[in-house]
Amino acid sequence: MKEISKAISDMKSKCPLVHNITNFVVMNVTANALLAVGASPVMAHEKEEFEDMLSIASALVINIGTLDKNNILAMEAAGIIAKRKNVPIVLDPVGAGATKLRTSTALNILKIATPKILRANASEVMAVAGESVKTKGVDSTLSGREAIEGAKYIAKTYKCVVSVSGETDIITDGYKTYSVTGGSNLMPLVTGMGCTATAISGAMLSASEPLIAASSAMAIMASAGEMAGKAAKGPGSFLSAFLDALYFLNIEDAALRVKEE
Amino acid sequence: MKEISKAISDMKSKCPLVHNITNFVVMNVTANALLAVGASPVMAHEKEEFEDMLSIASALVINIGTLDKNNILAMEAAGIIAKRKNVPIVLDPVGAGATKLRTSTALNILKIATPKILRANASEVMAVAGESVKTKGVDSTLSGREAIEGAKYIAKTYKCVVSVSGETDIITDGYKTYSVTGGSNLMPLVTGMGCTATAISGAMLSASEPLIAASSAMAIMASAGEMAGKAAKGPGSFLSAFLDALYFLNIEDAALRVKEE
Amino acid sequence: MKEISKAISDMKSKCPLVHNITNFVVMNVTANALLAVGASPVMAHEKEEFEDMLSIASALVINIGTLDKNNILAMEAAGIIAKRKNVPIVLDPVGAGATKLRTSTALNILKIATPKILRANASEVMAVAGESVKTKGVDSTLSGREAIEGAKYIAKTYKCVVSVSGETDIITDGYKTYSVTGGSNLMPLVTGMGCTATAISGAMLSASEPLIAASSAMAIMASAGEMAGKAAKGPGSFLSAFLDALYFLNIEDAALRVKEE
Repeated sequence: MKEISKAISDMKSKCPLVHNITNFVVMNVTANALLAVGASPVMAHEKEEFEDMLSIASALVINIGTLDKNNILAMEAAGIIAKRKNVPIVLDPVGAGATKLRTSTALNILKIATPKILRANASEVMAVAGESVKTKGVDSTLSGREAIEGAKYIAKTYKCVVSVSGETDIITDGYKTYSVTGGSNLMPLVTGMGCTATAISGAMLSASEPLIAASSAMAIMASAGEMAGKAAKGPGSFLSAFLDALYFLNIEDAALRVKEE
Repeated sequence: MKEISKAISDMKSKCPLVHNITNFVVMNVTANALLAVGASPVMAHEKEEFEDMLSIASALVINIGTLDKNNILAMEAAGIIAKRKNVPIVLDPVGAGATKLRTSTALNILKIATPKILRANASEVMAVAGESVKTKGVDSTLSGREAIEGAKYIAKTYKCVVSVSGETDIITDGYKTYSVTGGSNLMPLVTGMGCTATAISGAMLSASEPLIAASSAMAIMASAGEMAGKAAKGPGSFLSAFLDALYFLNIEDAALRVKEE
Repeated sequence: MKEISKAISDMKSKCPLVHNITNFVVMNVTANALLAVGASPVMAHEKEEFEDMLSIASALVINIGTLDKNNILAMEAAGIIAKRKNVPIVLDPVGAGATKLRTSTALNILKIATPKILRANASEVMAVAGESVKTKGVDSTLSGREAIEGAKYIAKTYKCVVSVSGETDIITDGYKTYSVTGGSNLMPLVTGMGCTATAISGAMLSASEPLIAASSAMAIMASAGEMAGKAAKGPGSFLSAFLDALYFLNIEDAALRVKEE
């Protein structure tokens, strides 16, 4: 799709600063992925600096992968400031459904900060949609397509785009739905791939409206992931190959992966 | 040893969820190692979600590598809940002996949470055993064998298995003792290798009793480490080669590395 | 320069323990870099263990990349204890200029802990010098040379060495100034390269006075970075190639990169 290649090119020419409040497991990975794809990452979680940081940032990424009382307050505060400043937000409800705290934190941020994109796996989407799901910690037990009705429900309820990763990624604003295919079967064996999709969704919000931004991010993941899967021996060599592939991204290949459902 | 190969195969078929409260330096590495070896990691340190997380987890891994007042309380709370729920615990007393805080925190968790396995290097084992040792931060100044009497003392006192990493790994329940050989001389030059052994010990507790679980974990490290050592140029390329080697683990090669002393 | 090769060799023979209070994004990278270059890292941020840790550490590295109320207090406390114990300090004011909190925290630590080396990029140096600069989060918008007057001003005011990374690195005590060239254009695309220069500066303080220590650290980065740039395909493969290059450092090549201005 032409809008996808234009959006990715525009993002790269802007080199947007993306403010991340994210989990401790993946910080290094998502920072490197943002740099490799042409954006500029900053990680900052102290409330006192949110006004300053969100004055220079193009997007805010909130990822609840390692919650505690302090960072929940920080995420809520940043979400409210970003909303006031019209800085677009992406929320990744990591592990929603695994614990009540994660589900309720995700729902609360959806309500008070009104993210433009909810980026999650299928189990997390179903949990946020209010379905009782069996999860396995932060890994999904469902395929992307199984969450499509839940995704549409969330999109309509919270007026956001929902981007569901899976063998086929599903991106919907509740009315229009895109799918993305590609990637590698090594991706679920490398921690932080979903969080990276979320961070890149933030970068893309600097250059297009949410449905195209979210679809572009998944297209980037699918294209770079497929290239890396061919270069890698296993999950260890996959990560460095993936960052290299992000850096050498074939924008046209990525754009071709997005189809309207 | 046949029990070792059976335990590793059983673990892989279960794909156990391992709940980690671990240090900030190695979180990404241990998460990737658990995925590569066939387990599913979750990192969670907020007390409010321990009941939920420990209801779906097969093991709890507590690693004191970067302590503070808050995470000490979290580790203690998680340890008590896991004990009540019969979720087996592995404790890694990172840096015990380097500071009084680390030694006393490790001892306190041993007492209140009764871990099934204490996984540590030789300096840390000697510190936990009450010996006055000269440590170098989180790196050992002793070989694995030098800690064997300390390891047996801890094992008997706290009714746990003690697993000591070194050129030769020593694993003991105080009565029966196994040794494991292999690995690579690059391993001490890559941060998080000991913590990875600890995390894999947690995964193994889902599939066997503690002495076999701890020995299996060290056998996995030794086998994958040796394979990675042959593939790597230096410590940088070692880490990705090691994760690849975990993914392609030769279970029979690992099992052959465990000998009764 | 002969002093540089001597200093690097001396550091390696000491294998100094470097106590880091650093940001969550780069902890793993700087720990691995310290190991690869021949030092021993420890990360510790709980005030209660600073007396013990700083009794065995050769240097303290303070890096403000991910600030919060708690770790600001920890950094200040560690700085004061290190000063009292004559443990030399390196400060990295990550993101100074991006938020008032970062600028003021950096200035406060400069005042109360009197670091031997301030290690930063050009935007951060200008912010610490009191210039109103346009920053992009934690990435510099200026070249190293553009900060030279600011660097000299800080060096004289706070009686420290200022080490500015850039295409050409500038290291000055306010009177004598060295430059270092080399590295790779992939380095700004990998998170934590500046923080790694800072950590290695800490290791070098165990073996020489601050101007030589800071110059040696930048020379190590330039030499290993150039070697890694030749071996890497992109930013993903760069990091492992860089750690390998640190391990196989050509000390003479590093020493040749330092010139008096």
